[in-house]
Amino acid sequence: MRQIEVNTRDRQGFYDISPQLQALVHESGVDDGICYIFCPHTTAGLTLNENWDPDVRHDMGMALDALSPARPGYRHGEGNSPAHVKSSLLGANTFVFIENGRLALGRWQGVYLAEFDGPRGRRVWVKIVES
Amino acid sequence: MRQIEVNTRDRQGFYDISPQLQALVHESGVDDGICYIFCPHTTAGLTLNENWDPDVRHDMGMALDALSPARPGYRHGEGNSPAHVKSSLLGANTFVFIENGRLALGRWQGVYLAEFDGPRGRRVWVKIVES
Amino acid sequence: MRQIEVNTRDRQGFYDISPQLQALVHESGVDDGICYIFCPHTTAGLTLNENWDPDVRHDMGMALDALSPARPGYRHGEGNSPAHVKSSLLGANTFVFIENGRLALGRWQGVYLAEFDGPRGRRVWVKIVES
Repeated sequence: MRQIEVNTRDRQGFYDISPQLQALVHESGVDDGICYIFCPHTTAGLTLNENWDPDVRHDMGMALDALSPARPGYRHGEGNSPAHVKSSLLGANTFVFIENGRLALGRWQGVYLAEFDGPRGRRVWVKIVES
Repeated sequence: MRQIEVNTRDRQGFYDISPQLQALVHESGVDDGICYIFCPHTTAGLTLNENWDPDVRHDMGMALDALSPARPGYRHGEGNSPAHVKSSLLGANTFVFIENGRLALGRWQGVYLAEFDGPRGRRVWVKIVES
Repeated sequence: MRQIEVNTRDRQGFYDISPQLQALVHESGVDDGICYIFCPHTTAGLTLNENWDPDVRHDMGMALDALSPARPGYRHGEGNSPAHVKSSLLGANTFVFIENGRLALGRWQGVYLAEFDGPRGRRVWVKIVES
């Protein structure tokens, strides 16, 4: 298992970890296989989305804030239930195929660590398997 | 393929299946690999989230009810469209790495079967692969 | 890596690709393993849901439109931010176990390509791994 570290800078944000993942794939020497990515945190998540226009990340953040506001009736004492909900909506793991030693992403696709309760030091676990 | 059975007790609820998954991993004898988990139902789902404070599950249920209410205009005759929508929002499968014969979960993370149209007898399919 | 092509017909819609996936599984000769499915687009997604009553797809579309409307304040110039958000909510990849040469889906389950910004020509990447 390999690891990526991300120091997030704000309460919420999306961090493109594709270059770090690509470096791990290169290092592994695997030409064809699958890169599995796992977020061990419960107030962050992982998602694939557009890596070209940063406005997409802005709009994604706005949408998630609208979908998961602080709700009257929430009981969790830490006050970060909106972040836990966002984590489950986006999911805490994902995978990308590897072809010819490279991550096989769509033309406009990046892999994002989504921070929902930052800023914090976050880790992402990675497993690269030949197939 | 291995199987876990969960008898859910209410219309909606989150059931920590991490101990049963860990037992299957132990039984498999796999030291390093991936544990794949699949929910064959369309009104239930799987998610990773906090396993410490049960209030997180309460708040997650509140949020999902708010995000997926019965909507005027729904056509599906069984009346459980809100549950189908929740199932797609959370997803019907997930995976966890295995290290040294144990599920590699984050410190506060558990694997949950999410029931959205219970109570029912639910099954979860599991595949444990060395890597 | 194998590929499925889907020509979507409307702005939004759900396309059952289970038969094409099953054909690829058959062609691969793999009896037991995992079928991994990846959507290389950022305004489409993949989900598992009911394949019997088409009204479930209708209701799913209604729900996603309600959850991800055009929001005042969105900045992304192409105007398809609602589609990007839906893509991250459903996710861009999934997997299904293979048993005895067949996709191990639940009784009412199909694998759907979800189009959110069509009509377009879409591709789905597939990897079939023995295990």
